[in-house]
Formats: sequence, C-alpha cells, structure tokens
Amino acid sequence: MEVELKEMLDDLQSLRQSLSDPSLHASVDKLQSRVDHLIHLAKSVPVRRTKVKDMSAEVVDSNPYSRLMALQRMGIVENYERIREFSVAIVGIGGVGSVAAEMLTRCGIGRLLLYDYDKVELANMNRLFFRPEQVGMTKTDAAVQTLSDINPDVVLESYTLNITTVQGFETFMSSLKNKTFCPIKEGSGVDLVLSCVDNYEARMVVNQACNELNQTWMESGVSEDAVSGHIQLLIPGETACFACAPPLVVASGVDERTLKREGVCAASLPTTMGVVAGLLVQNTLKFLLKFGHVSPYLGYSSLKDYFPTMAMKPNPQCSNAACLERQKEYILAKPARDAAEKAKMEAEAAAVAADVPLHDDNEWNISVLDDSEMESTGATSSGITADALPDGLTRELPIADDFQKPPTSGATDNAINDLEELRRQLEALNAD
Amino acid sequence: MEVELKEMLDDLQSLRQSLSDPSLHASVDKLQSRVDHLIHLAKSVPVRRTKVKDMSAEVVDSNPYSRLMALQRMGIVENYERIREFSVAIVGIGGVGSVAAEMLTRCGIGRLLLYDYDKVELANMNRLFFRPEQVGMTKTDAAVQTLSDINPDVVLESYTLNITTVQGFETFMSSLKNKTFCPIKEGSGVDLVLSCVDNYEARMVVNQACNELNQTWMESGVSEDAVSGHIQLLIPGETACFACAPPLVVASGVDERTLKREGVCAASLPTTMGVVAGLLVQNTLKFLLKFGHVSPYLGYSSLKDYFPTMAMKPNPQCSNAACLERQKEYILAKPARDAAEKAKMEAEAAAVAADVPLHDDNEWNISVLDDSEMESTGATSSGITADALPDGLTRELPIADDFQKPPTSGATDNAINDLEELRRQLEALNAD
Repeated sequence: MEVELKEMLDDLQSLRQSLSDPSLHASVDKLQSRVDHLIHLAKSVPVRRTKVKDMSAEVVDSNPYSRLMALQRMGIVENYERIREFSVAIVGIGGVGSVAAEMLTRCGIGRLLLYDYDKVELANMNRLFFRPEQVGMTKTDAAVQTLSDINPDVVLESYTLNITTVQGFETFMSSLKNKTFCPIKEGSGVDLVLSCVDNYEARMVVNQACNELNQTWMESGVSEDAVSGHIQLLIPGETACFACAPPLVVASGVDERTLKREGVCAASLPTTMGVVAGLLVQNTLKFLLKFGHVSPYLGYSSLKDYFPTMAMKPNPQCSNAACLERQKEYILAKPARDAAEKAKMEAEAAAVAADVPLHDDNEWNISVLDDSEMESTGATSSGITADALPDGLTRELPIADDFQKPPTSGATDNAINDLEELRRQLEALNAD
Repeated sequence: MEVELKEMLDDLQSLRQSLSDPSLHASVDKLQSRVDHLIHLAKSVPVRRTKVKDMSAEVVDSNPYSRLMALQRMGIVENYERIREFSVAIVGIGGVGSVAAEMLTRCGIGRLLLYDYDKVELANMNRLFFRPEQVGMTKTDAAVQTLSDINPDVVLESYTLNITTVQGFETFMSSLKNKTFCPIKEGSGVDLVLSCVDNYEARMVVNQACNELNQTWMESGVSEDAVSGHIQLLIPGETACFACAPPLVVASGVDERTLKREGVCAASLPTTMGVVAGLLVQNTLKFLLKFGHVSPYLGYSSLKDYFPTMAMKPNPQCSNAACLERQKEYILAKPARDAAEKAKMEAEAAAVAADVPLHDDNEWNISVLDDSEMESTGATSSGITADALPDGLTRELPIADDFQKPPTSGATDNAINDLEELRRQLEALNAD
C-alpha cells in the first residue's frame, strides 16, 4: 500500500505543476497532506522479523533461539541446531495439527509439509491457532500465513488436498519422497510424519503410505467427547502398524460415516487438543534430537488425569501387505542390528579404556574442573544441575529420584511384613 | 483508513469540477481510480467477529460455541453456558499464562483478569501465543489485542503491574475483591486465581493474597531445563498452602536472585509449556463446571512421559499467619460440612424414593426411551456413549475401565498367592 500512496504523491505533484489557475493549488496541497497522513498510517502496519542465519545461544532479548539453545547448556540436547536439518509432515491441520505445526515452527524446525483440504470456520474457534479473520481461507493457506509471520526461517510447503482421493494420495506420496531439501538423507524426504486427522479412513491412508515408504510416523487422536486423547509411535516392521491393531471400535465392514448421526457434532476443547499436540511434538523433539525416551503409546484421560502407556508388537496376520513386507525385513535385519549394537558397545568400552589417567598414581582418573568448564561439558553438567546445591542452600524434600519411586514399593513392603508376621504366628502355634 | 480515503475521493471530485482546463481531467480521473484501488485494499483488512448474545448448540459452521455446547449433549458437562458467569485471574502472562488465557478465551469464559509487568521480546518467540510484530508491547496489551480479536464476548481486564511491589499488591488485592461483574457471588470477585509466574517470590505473594481472601487458586510451574512441569490446587485451610510445603530447593534466607548466574538463561519449550497450560485449564474447567476429578497435584516429566500425582494436607506449623487462620476455620466448620453432606445424601435418597413406578407391576421402574430422549438426558446418555455400540460393530479390545485398572492389583494377587503357598509349605513341614 505504501508504494501506491507514493505514486499518488508523484501524480499530485505533476498535476499541481500543470495547473494554470494558482487558486486550485490549495486543493492539491490538501490532497497531498492527506496522502502523507495515509503513508504514516500504512507505515505503522507491523513488519515481519528478518531471517536468522545461524542459531545463536547468546542471551539477549532479540534472540528468538536463546531459550532453545539453552537446552544444550543444560545438558538435555547434544546439538539443538540439528533441528534445522529435519523435515516433518503434518497431515490434518485441525485442532491438534495446527498447534503441532506452531510448536515445531517456534522450535525452528527446518521444513514443515502441511496437508489439509478443509476451510477455516467460526466453529473451529474453540480450539487454538486459527483466528476469526481467517474464516473462509483454506486451513493450509491460513496456517502458512500465521506460521511464516511467527518464524520466517522455517521452510513451509502446503498441500491443499484430500489424501484419501486417488490423486491426493499420489501427490501425498511424491511430496514425501521429494529429497530436494536434504539430498543426502537416507530413506524418504521427511524425517517424521505426524497424523493429526479425525477419522479412521485417513489414518489408514497415512498407514499405507508410511508402510510403503518404510517411514516412521506418529499417530494422534482425541475422543468424540473431547475429554481424552492419545499419541502413538509407529515404526514399520518394528511396532504394530495401524492395521495390525485396530482401534477400540471397528466397523466390521460398516462405513464409518454411518457412525455419525445427522446434525450431531463431536465436542472439542482447546485444552485436550493442546495437551495432545504438546505430547506429540515433545515426543517428536525427543525422536529427532535423540534425548529422553520416546513413548510407544501414551494416552491422556482428562477426567481423572490418567496417562496409560503400552507398547504393541506387529501382528504377523496383519491385513496390510506392506506391513508384512516390513516385518519380514525387520526380522531378516536382526543379525545386522545385533552386530551394530555390539560394535557400538565395544567402541564405547574402547573409548573409556583409551582415557589415559592424568597422572600415573591417579588410577581413578579423577580430575578437577572449574565452574566454567563444567558448564561447557553437556552430559556432565546435567547431573550437576540436577543434584548439586549452591552454598547456603538446603534440601527440604527428598530429591526427585527418591520421591518419584512408584507407590507399589510400599505395597511390597507391606507384603513382606505380612509374610514375616504370619511366619511368626505360625511358629508361635508350632511352639504350643 | 477507509474514511480518509473516501474523503479524498470527495476532494478529488470537487477539484475536478473546479478545473477550467478539461485536458487535466484525465490526471484527476487517474488519481480517483488509484484511490478506488486503495479503498479496495483497505477493505480486505479483516474485520472482527461480532459478539454472540447466547451460547447456542446449533451445529452450523458459523457458531463458535457448537463444539463446546456439545459437551452437554455428550453428558460431560451439565450446563456449559455457566462458564459465562465465571471470572478467572491469571498472574503472569508468559509461556504458560498466555496460553491458559487463550484457552479460557476460546472456551468463552465470562471474565479474565490479566497481570504482568513485562514486555514482549523476540526471545519469547519459542513459546506459543505472542507474535514477532508485538515485540516491544507490554504482555498485557498484546494479550488483550489478541484475545479480544479471538473472542469479543470475553470481558478482559488487564493490569500492567508487578504484584511483588507494595502498590502492585494493593491494586492486585482490590481487583480480586471487585464484585461488579457478578455482585451476587460469595467470597471475592473471582472464582479462581491461576498463578503462572516464574519465581518463588511472586508465588509467595499470590499465596499471601489468596490466604487472606480465602481464595482457591492453582499454581503452575516449568523447570529451568524446560523438560518438566507441574500444576497444583490450593484451597486455603483445606490443602497445603505454598508456604506449608516449600519447593524442593528453598533458599535458607538467601535471596533467590543469587541462584541465577549472570548471562545464564533458563531453557524453555512450547511443548512443555503448552502441556502445562492445557492441564491447568482442563483442571480449571473441571473445577468451575463441576465434572471429572480435579487433581490436587499433577506433575509432568517429559523425558519419560511420567505424570506423578499426590495430595498435601496443610502444615499446622505453617509460617503463614493467614494460612493458620484458614486452617482453624476449616476445622471449626467440620460439623457444618458433615451435616450438609448428610442432608445432601438424604435429599438424593428421597428423590430416588419419590420416583413412583410407571406401573404398579413395574417395581424395577423400567421405562423405554427413544433415541432423541436419550440424547437430551445428560447423565444417562453419558453411560450410553461410553459403553453401547451401534449395530454391526464389535469391540476388539477390553473397554477402558477394564483396561485402566492400576497395575498394583497384580502385585497384591501375587502377595496373597505367596502367603497361601507359604502356609501350605509350613503345614507340610508340620506334618512331617
């Protein structure tokens, strides 16, 4: 708009010069001052932040990555900046997918591929992310608009299509295979697929694509009554695929659309969907950046704040042919996996042995580090931040590891006490 | 901007009429078409959604509350629309508080009171909610801007102040006491206070205010290494207050600011903060709308996806005088609480007894309902949606309640078996 207004100023200037009647100059001057005012107004429209070349750990207010790079200093992540190399595909940009996309964008993920065919409606406003002024836009367009404003460093690809159609599936497959972003990457062109769709049919399509491509993916879902949800990790051949273990309610040949009654809509809450998106992306970060433990399955039952976990092996009678192929490959690759695991352990043992003691008389390899050194040694400092206390501080409660022991240990103690008590009673009876 | 442009069109029209030289008309026409184009551009700037008088359950795309009102039909919430009567205060509009505010806004909460003294920085962009174009604004102003666009039905009050200063504390207290929004409400002017601050000092101030006002509140927090967090419910006199049970690390007279080293910043993640905000607001909804079970304490340890729970009674030696007052009141009110509980149970029993059987020979009070009736009876339909299956469907896995039995039950069975086994062995020895 600023450009158009400046051109108008030029036009007014030339009009003023062509005027033979000087009494009309005042009118043109008034118009010029109006345009000046509009230019001022247009300038107050916000500008976007510029791209950042390298992620810096510098602690200044203007650094959008300082709090993420701090994960390295805290010893949580070994190399946070690797996140820029990863591509994540998100299928379904609804209540869970849109929030997952925003989280990954704010984390500075390398590339996001977004798939949805739906439009933004006012009825979506009870979930996070979309805004009322985006009503009528496709969800993919609205998402690209918001996400590119938030972090212009992320490469965004959006696909306005339905993956359950023949043509949609073809485009979906070829976009996942495209390796332009990171040509040296093994396998497909993406590191992880997140399924955030709301129906069984679409999940089966994601399952088919990932089984064919041997692509690890994560599935997510929220119940129709809005108060529970889950996430699940699926590694073709290694864990159950979506067809190996059908969901609790499965239509035995019945079209799932008949399950939904006319004029009835599912409930939804920004809380449940926000929690599921958060758990999904947290496990995505753990998977990509190799820290913590990636949950194979994690449920969220909000009425009782209950979080069930489980793991599922693949079903040798799975109905999906590509899954059976992947299962065969996984079994055949077992000797190679075992050998690699053994080699890794031997290399680690060798590395420890190669650590020559600082002094001949220091067989325990003890060394003294000053504070600044401790901070720079990732893994070591993790232990230190967790356990050590600065001078003048005392611990009022047991440390987390003691505290977090499962309550079952108490039950076991009681059982042992009961046993001893019984033994004593029986011995007393024998003595009589 | 549209108004200014239209005035400019009028000015151009009168200028055109004053021109004696017709050859200049073309220049004015060109200017007019430029202004027309700018009016068109200005019109594409989004407009806000209008206020909604009553929450409707109608299932149309234009209804922002349809998915929330569906919670009633699903039997989760008895009266969702009551949410419009509630006031919630959020102290600290950072990574957790801002997302909590957005969730409550999208849920259509009656009134939100927001407290923060900080400004938006680019360094906050790794968490949800704030956008780069808001950098430099106060967090309260930026939040009001975003939230009022999302849902103009919510009454927003923002307080740009530091509650740990003397004057800030006074304004904080008087804003909590103000009952203009709902004059008939008992107690203070708010239904719940959410503490989303990032330091011990501010938490102690919220604790002091809530103990003085006998105000129920929820506390939230995220660890410095960004990978764990918690929420906690605090009911003055009934549960531990924040001073009753100090956090794991407590400065013994040492100023907590000395704990933070120069140039070192805490890590943070949009995932952990999103999960904590989601759990916090989910428990807020359960507390306000009376459904499910409100967790007294819920932790989130993301590395292992572990969610510890516990409950804490107040400390009779608490250092906070107002807490001791509330404890005394709570104990004194026990007979009245017991009487009320008994009266409630008797009333419920009487209501059941008053249900006359439909027929004299129908002593089990069995009645036949058609589908539409079932949907409208909240509590009943809940059971039905959870357990019944439409025709043609089978259940492939056990239902949730069977599946969710805690693993400890197995341990107890073993203990009993072991006891019996021991008894048998001892009896065998006696027989010898």
